Amino acid sequence: MTKKKTHYLHRIDNPAALRELRPEELSAYSREIRDFIIRELSCNPGHLGSSLGVVELTVALHYVFDTPHDKIVWDVGHQAYAHKILTGRRDRFHTKRKLGGLSGFPVMSESPYDAFGVGYASTSISAALGIAASDEIKGEKRQVVAVIGDGSLTGGLAYEGLNNAGAMHTDLLVILNDNRMAIDKNVGAMKEYLLSITSSKRYNKLKNKIWDNLDKAKWIRRQIQKTGDALKTGLLQQSNLFEALNFRYFGPVNGHNMKSLVRVLRDLKEIRGPKLLHIITEKGHGYSPAVENPSLWHAPGKFNTDTGELEDHSDRQNGPMRYQDVFGHTIIELAEQNPKIVGITPAMPSGCSLYLMMERMPQRTFDVGIAEAHAVTFSAGLSAGGLHPFCNIYSSFMQRAYDNVIHDVALQKLDVTFCLDRAGIVGEDGATHQGVFDIAYFRSIPNIIIAAPMNEVELRHLMFTSQQPGHGAFVIRYPRGRGVVKEWRQPMKSIPIGRGRLLKTGSDLALLSLGNVGNFAAEAVSKAQEQGISVEHIDLRFAKPLDEELLHRVGQKFRQAVTVENDVIAGGVGSAVLEFMNTHGYNCRITMLGVPDEFPEHGTPEQLHHKYGFDADGILETLIALSALDRAH
Amino acid sequence: MTKKKTHYLHRIDNPAALRELRPEELSAYSREIRDFIIRELSCNPGHLGSSLGVVELTVALHYVFDTPHDKIVWDVGHQAYAHKILTGRRDRFHTKRKLGGLSGFPVMSESPYDAFGVGYASTSISAALGIAASDEIKGEKRQVVAVIGDGSLTGGLAYEGLNNAGAMHTDLLVILNDNRMAIDKNVGAMKEYLLSITSSKRYNKLKNKIWDNLDKAKWIRRQIQKTGDALKTGLLQQSNLFEALNFRYFGPVNGHNMKSLVRVLRDLKEIRGPKLLHIITEKGHGYSPAVENPSLWHAPGKFNTDTGELEDHSDRQNGPMRYQDVFGHTIIELAEQNPKIVGITPAMPSGCSLYLMMERMPQRTFDVGIAEAHAVTFSAGLSAGGLHPFCNIYSSFMQRAYDNVIHDVALQKLDVTFCLDRAGIVGEDGATHQGVFDIAYFRSIPNIIIAAPMNEVELRHLMFTSQQPGHGAFVIRYPRGRGVVKEWRQPMKSIPIGRGRLLKTGSDLALLSLGNVGNFAAEAVSKAQEQGISVEHIDLRFAKPLDEELLHRVGQKFRQAVTVENDVIAGGVGSAVLEFMNTHGYNCRITMLGVPDEFPEHGTPEQLHHKYGFDADGILETLIALSALDRAH
Repeated sequence: MTKKKTHYLHRIDNPAALRELRPEELSAYSREIRDFIIRELSCNPGHLGSSLGVVELTVALHYVFDTPHDKIVWDVGHQAYAHKILTGRRDRFHTKRKLGGLSGFPVMSESPYDAFGVGYASTSISAALGIAASDEIKGEKRQVVAVIGDGSLTGGLAYEGLNNAGAMHTDLLVILNDNRMAIDKNVGAMKEYLLSITSSKRYNKLKNKIWDNLDKAKWIRRQIQKTGDALKTGLLQQSNLFEALNFRYFGPVNGHNMKSLVRVLRDLKEIRGPKLLHIITEKGHGYSPAVENPSLWHAPGKFNTDTGELEDHSDRQNGPMRYQDVFGHTIIELAEQNPKIVGITPAMPSGCSLYLMMERMPQRTFDVGIAEAHAVTFSAGLSAGGLHPFCNIYSSFMQRAYDNVIHDVALQKLDVTFCLDRAGIVGEDGATHQGVFDIAYFRSIPNIIIAAPMNEVELRHLMFTSQQPGHGAFVIRYPRGRGVVKEWRQPMKSIPIGRGRLLKTGSDLALLSLGNVGNFAAEAVSKAQEQGISVEHIDLRFAKPLDEELLHRVGQKFRQAVTVENDVIAGGVGSAVLEFMNTHGYNCRITMLGVPDEFPEHGTPEQLHHKYGFDADGILETLIALSALDRAH
Repeated sequence: MTKKKTHYLHRIDNPAALRELRPEELSAYSREIRDFIIRELSCNPGHLGSSLGVVELTVALHYVFDTPHDKIVWDVGHQAYAHKILTGRRDRFHTKRKLGGLSGFPVMSESPYDAFGVGYASTSISAALGIAASDEIKGEKRQVVAVIGDGSLTGGLAYEGLNNAGAMHTDLLVILNDNRMAIDKNVGAMKEYLLSITSSKRYNKLKNKIWDNLDKAKWIRRQIQKTGDALKTGLLQQSNLFEALNFRYFGPVNGHNMKSLVRVLRDLKEIRGPKLLHIITEKGHGYSPAVENPSLWHAPGKFNTDTGELEDHSDRQNGPMRYQDVFGHTIIELAEQNPKIVGITPAMPSGCSLYLMMERMPQRTFDVGIAEAHAVTFSAGLSAGGLHPFCNIYSSFMQRAYDNVIHDVALQKLDVTFCLDRAGIVGEDGATHQGVFDIAYFRSIPNIIIAAPMNEVELRHLMFTSQQPGHGAFVIRYPRGRGVVKEWRQPMKSIPIGRGRLLKTGSDLALLSLGNVGNFAAEAVSKAQEQGISVEHIDLRFAKPLDEELLHRVGQKFRQAVTVENDVIAGGVGSAVLEFMNTHGYNCRITMLGVPDEFPEHGTPEQLHHKYGFDADGILETLIALSALDRAH
């Protein structure tokens, strides 16, 4: 794709400038934004498909609404690239998702146009309702809009927001951006319902009557403004789920038809109370490779704009596999042996590679939609019914299902394996995606096993171990990205619960690592050895229960130990080791490496590991400093 | 109420015996169960209203379904008294909610009839779907029933379950027990929708046609079994929210009409796929005081069965006030001064006493339904809109909104006060209600203040402090029940963030307490003094940030310190103190008192405090033991 000369892009740097365009110019401007996004993302990776899908909507919203006075709350937020570009951030757009650069998501502190920060799904209705309710109390007049995808609508939080908003009289516009997708294909009864609305003759008749004939749009307004009950006896109300929840429903509208969008949004500004506009969009719209394979092009990495070839694909064959694929292949191996095994994912079959099992054993895999809490309680039910669920949820998304793990699984001692993908620093997705809290939030819960493999073979051993009956809640956390060994498919074996590995003996001090950062630690320990510092290295393997035998050994042998973990220090595994030393009266000071008491922003994982001092260099520095300190005493 | 001679109650100890009754005997048996519950609860308090509401349903379910082979999953579970009584637990019913006795909720380990353990809302559909799906995979044939109240249906988890179940073909019966109540009046668009179904002429016509004329019930079966699409073109389907989610909807049925219930349940056994039966019941049915004031009689404490007089009411005027009422009165005082203050509760206006503000300032208080996640994100929206929300959620229920506190409030540094009522050991409600994890799960999160008042006056100071701008997420945790001072309404003052209180100086060892258990500690410290043990007592007041000045003092002065907290030890405030001592190189051993690594079961708070050694006696014992140890060295 050659860089074309732009007529609008370079001179529109804020919505005020946008509003000086004539309506018929908006489509051309949208095309320029779309081209800009494609070009930029081809070399600076990001979320492509969803951003392309809402270009027209974004332009129409800022054209019609008086932003930033009026508020637009984006759900998930990975579709907000056009929004960023036209709200003064085009020049810095190339810095997005980079250390110190723009976030890949809306962030309140980044721009007054970002009405509410977001990074994950289903929050927009609740947040927008809060903003709208605050206006009402303060007597301020402004429009508040939540833009939510049909995928996000599978999250219970979205329903809680609808249910509450529908009972209030607050002015709120919810735009349902219906593209039939989460990251993968959307699932659930709601999706089918939306499809039935869109495809039914009845609705199409209504749609044609109302929406494609928008010159008569005054008709709607008249109909609706008459009284609150105007449509109560009408056909539309009676048959619509949203109307049942007290929302006035409008749609479906073609979300790529700029003229329709601008007109309907203008009309909706005049209508009071909670209302929902259903628009149909296409993920990846305007770039055919992304339209043809929307899951792959959700966040494609670098690509050739002309050929649509993905750069990442070319190196898939080299080097170690991704942890998620080791999980995906291993669960099939296990499930072939153990008929009780079933797989559950909340809308992340590609993201966690459960799609591999889904293809092979469709009856034994469940994509339950963006619904982590349900995923966990559903897994508890499957376990109560005698099966062994492997419930795979990204570490940071597991925060949504915290209570369900406690009450429905741990308390009842039901056997469920929780595979926490993307645990630890994830990098470019930034603060909302870093999976750094799980050890701290799980280790205070009784009846839970928490493990983290140092490599892919260990991941397999832990998965094998977890599916043996009677272990209860068994958490296995592993990082985003690739592993460290090429020969990962080795025979699986059972690991004694709470047993760590003594990787190297030493005499000066001990280093206890958990999970993948053990590899950085091993490198540091080896370099320290070269400098004459003898470090004993233990791979804890379990954060709970701890390996008491190895810890007694450390307590008896050393006055200094370092812990290294890929998560928060406060309450993490270092803290657990410290509690052990204190309980047993060992005078062993623990230097804890991990994430300090702040939200880690975006940047590459390597940059962030370095920033927090737990890459190999950082660990080595700590070992040298402690060793010097020891000698000084 | 005199104890009447029973004809059925004493001889029916399990559902098999029940099934030998003739249908026309079931109503009389139900009346006996109801009388038994009322008599028992008048002297052994428990959840009255909801249990009385489902007596007929419970009898009908066990009569029609082949329990325990067929599975009944109760939502919330506080309505399961009749279920317990007729499944072999009548003789032990008087032990319910007592230490070592029956739980007040269904518990899998207590009975094979308790298909899934529960204590809080909205889990039943997900769990039942899991059980039903496991049957399908294993090729087992059985009926699975979830019984969920309309209040629980406001929880997003219930919707996630419906959305997922509606897209599967699994056989599942959801019984919607519609009494228009949560603990207080149910709120939300769904409630209004259910009401409209029930009261509309159209529905009543259908209801009359179908349900009151059940001799013709074969008609339904015929209609529905024809094909999956039988009703797709019919009136019922088109206008029903549940049908839109792929559930077949039946109802509404009078839930106290035994004949109707038995017939419709029998019919529904034959119908495949996901289906929802809507029954209308009355909370407190059959006992007029409970019907007249269902909120008060949700869990009324002891009462006189004849007069309906509540025992608890008589002592409301004596002794200290409940913490929740101090909160309720204080937020009004603050809101009168600060127009930005708004109050939010997820369905607990009585439980947390926000009803006081609701009566005085209805425009500034929000009951959002059983929807904690929404309550928090909605609060974040209110704060983004410039207001200062006080969001009051029980500690254990806050587990449902964990991610929302992290992403929507803390990460964005929005000012929200979280009042965590029922923090610490709550007692008789047992394992699912103990609010013992919040300190551990919050203290690893950046940008959060966590405080716990030692008494009511401190609670007021903390509330006052929290509403000053710029503090971000401000958690105030306080216990269930009464405070410790009579003169609680003292002028409020601002407390420096992270500043504890040195209550007593001492020379032998230090005791650091957090929250109300500081009062037990003070008693123990005073008794220790009498025995010649000089203890320095600090009320930490904040779990985060810690009072570094006081902690440096402790680290410099003492080799031994005791921490006392009303929550889990692992990762709790004692652990934070230990991290501090370790970081600063103090050789100060910490003995941590609190809840060990187990789920605390039901019992009185006093019994549980004693069991875990942090009542005054337990703390004193620890002080004596440590002092002896110190002297022995």
